[in-house]
Amino acid sequence: MSFPPIRPELAGIEPYGAPQLPVDLVPVQLNVNENPYGPSEECVADIAASAGEAARTLNRYPDREFVALRTALASYLSRDVPGEIVPEQVWAANGSNEVMLQLLQAFGGPGRTALSFAPTYSMYPEYARDSMTAWVAGRREDDFSLDLDRARALIAEVRPDVVLLPSPNNPTGTALPPEAITVLCEAVGDRGVVVVDEAYGEFRRSGVPSALELLPAHRNLVVTRTMSKAFAAAGLRLGYLAADPAICDAIRVVRLPYHLSAVTQATALAALRHAPELLGNVDQLRAQRDKTVAWLRDQGLQVADSDANFCLFGTVGDRHAVWQGLLDRGVLIRETGPDGWLRVSIGTPEEMAAFEDALVAVMKEMA
Amino acid sequence: MSFPPIRPELAGIEPYGAPQLPVDLVPVQLNVNENPYGPSEECVADIAASAGEAARTLNRYPDREFVALRTALASYLSRDVPGEIVPEQVWAANGSNEVMLQLLQAFGGPGRTALSFAPTYSMYPEYARDSMTAWVAGRREDDFSLDLDRARALIAEVRPDVVLLPSPNNPTGTALPPEAITVLCEAVGDRGVVVVDEAYGEFRRSGVPSALELLPAHRNLVVTRTMSKAFAAAGLRLGYLAADPAICDAIRVVRLPYHLSAVTQATALAALRHAPELLGNVDQLRAQRDKTVAWLRDQGLQVADSDANFCLFGTVGDRHAVWQGLLDRGVLIRETGPDGWLRVSIGTPEEMAAFEDALVAVMKEMA
Repeated sequence: MSFPPIRPELAGIEPYGAPQLPVDLVPVQLNVNENPYGPSEECVADIAASAGEAARTLNRYPDREFVALRTALASYLSRDVPGEIVPEQVWAANGSNEVMLQLLQAFGGPGRTALSFAPTYSMYPEYARDSMTAWVAGRREDDFSLDLDRARALIAEVRPDVVLLPSPNNPTGTALPPEAITVLCEAVGDRGVVVVDEAYGEFRRSGVPSALELLPAHRNLVVTRTMSKAFAAAGLRLGYLAADPAICDAIRVVRLPYHLSAVTQATALAALRHAPELLGNVDQLRAQRDKTVAWLRDQGLQVADSDANFCLFGTVGDRHAVWQGLLDRGVLIRETGPDGWLRVSIGTPEEMAAFEDALVAVMKEMA
Repeated sequence: MSFPPIRPELAGIEPYGAPQLPVDLVPVQLNVNENPYGPSEECVADIAASAGEAARTLNRYPDREFVALRTALASYLSRDVPGEIVPEQVWAANGSNEVMLQLLQAFGGPGRTALSFAPTYSMYPEYARDSMTAWVAGRREDDFSLDLDRARALIAEVRPDVVLLPSPNNPTGTALPPEAITVLCEAVGDRGVVVVDEAYGEFRRSGVPSALELLPAHRNLVVTRTMSKAFAAAGLRLGYLAADPAICDAIRVVRLPYHLSAVTQATALAALRHAPELLGNVDQLRAQRDKTVAWLRDQGLQVADSDANFCLFGTVGDRHAVWQGLLDRGVLIRETGPDGWLRVSIGTPEEMAAFEDALVAVMKEMA
């Protein structure tokens, strides 16, 4: 008998995660869509003071319902909608990956099915596996958009319990138009939930609305967000969602009690107080993204239109060789998406210049 | 069709958790086995500085392998064993409840079975439910000990994949003798894992060894700990385990990537640097526990021998009425364990005096 007695379907699987390489070895890290701009001294000081304040009662369990944090998140989200998001519509967990797992534990599970459309975020099938939910991946069109008739037909056939729709999509950067969300919410109906994953929502181009605006119209709609990307707080691990309060109450049944530590709650509250600063670099990153898209196209590459802080470009032939060539030049990007495509996160102007120089050199070498 | 479409077995279930009541309404809170002694000013300042340092690079993802924290935890655990615990033997997560869920996701799951012996920790069946693991509860003897022959027979019959053995047991306070752990590890064999949950391990009476000492003898043994109890850091949500490195590697397959935030890692490291101080009150709490056990017995009540920072006492007749009577007098304890029994956490001498006065008054009123 083999040891340890791990479930057979997990045996031999590599843990999920992009390579983490030290910054002194690889100075330009553009592989996990982090925000390149760290917090200001004022924000750092506020986080330190808030964590210290939380530490005074560290011997006590945290507020299990994280009421203050839910209230602050609701207030932050309310900026994106004509009406108001109330705290009862908000849920949070340690990263949006814990939010997704909780959604699948509550609404997926054995005998149930989750559906998305590939190419899409490579963690989704892992959440499904970890929650024993069957996984079905439809296909996106060649331009990574969704054909709504085909999507609707697939929903009628599969009858999914959970539909996962990143907007903008990772790794393609493609946003969903609101009419697509409406059509898919109606196709699923009360039988399931439709999760629009707006992890990169704040980077969307002007004129692209948030799915938050559709919440009043569809009680089966869940919109997830994270503080890891635009909010420049990947180290905080705070994901959250807005939905019908009944959906939040359902998640409460499967959440582990006290899942958000007192320090996490205090740090997230401090970061939210500095939202204007932390989000202040988003406009600059959007402009840099548009420049990068244009530059890649000038090199004769295809680039998916991006509403996120990354671009998917291709085709580059042997993508692993290109990825390795960039790494050899101190630039780490991500080998993901369809064959022959690569994804690069948007960094500072200096980082993007280093990426461009390295890519030109690699492409010349390979030609 | 009912909405939301939660899994049918979860519909109508109340989320797990003891009542959280404000301390200005209920000044004496002895219901969740917290350590009543908070950290010193020096420890608070160190946590604030460490969280602030982590915040400087908050835009970056945390170390997914939390190497520094695993190293510090291994060093801390090594104090309890003749040999050495190495970092590769250590795993951690957001509270020992996340550790338990990960263990069941890796080694339990559909078609597999978890076994414990009742009365025991009321979260265990929830972990089993959330990981779709079948749940079997054997029975403890009237003095809450385990009859090893019966336990062995049950293991032969059930063939469990995961055995959950709290030592000391919650809510009874009963520690397992090392020979029981040896017998049960051998009965299970390489077919499953035996999890000895030492959440309250540091409170054990002198002469009671930790199951950590048995790790070299049994590769299917997992010993879990938490920083929530003796370590006085319930607000930090840091649970951990020591086991064969192959068991830690198996958990890495099911863990959510970056599950431990940079702030959590920094805060835990700071708290570990103050271990002597934070653990300094453990001796006082053990003495207070022994005094409380003696006092309760003087009142004519049965009290289970306790190696933890709580006592289970009974029988009190209508335990809900006693619980409510104490609450009306500003003392919150826990309605858990067998019918007619109640559990009280060990607080400060002042808190225990308030508990004793209130209990005398309630018992007099009910007589």
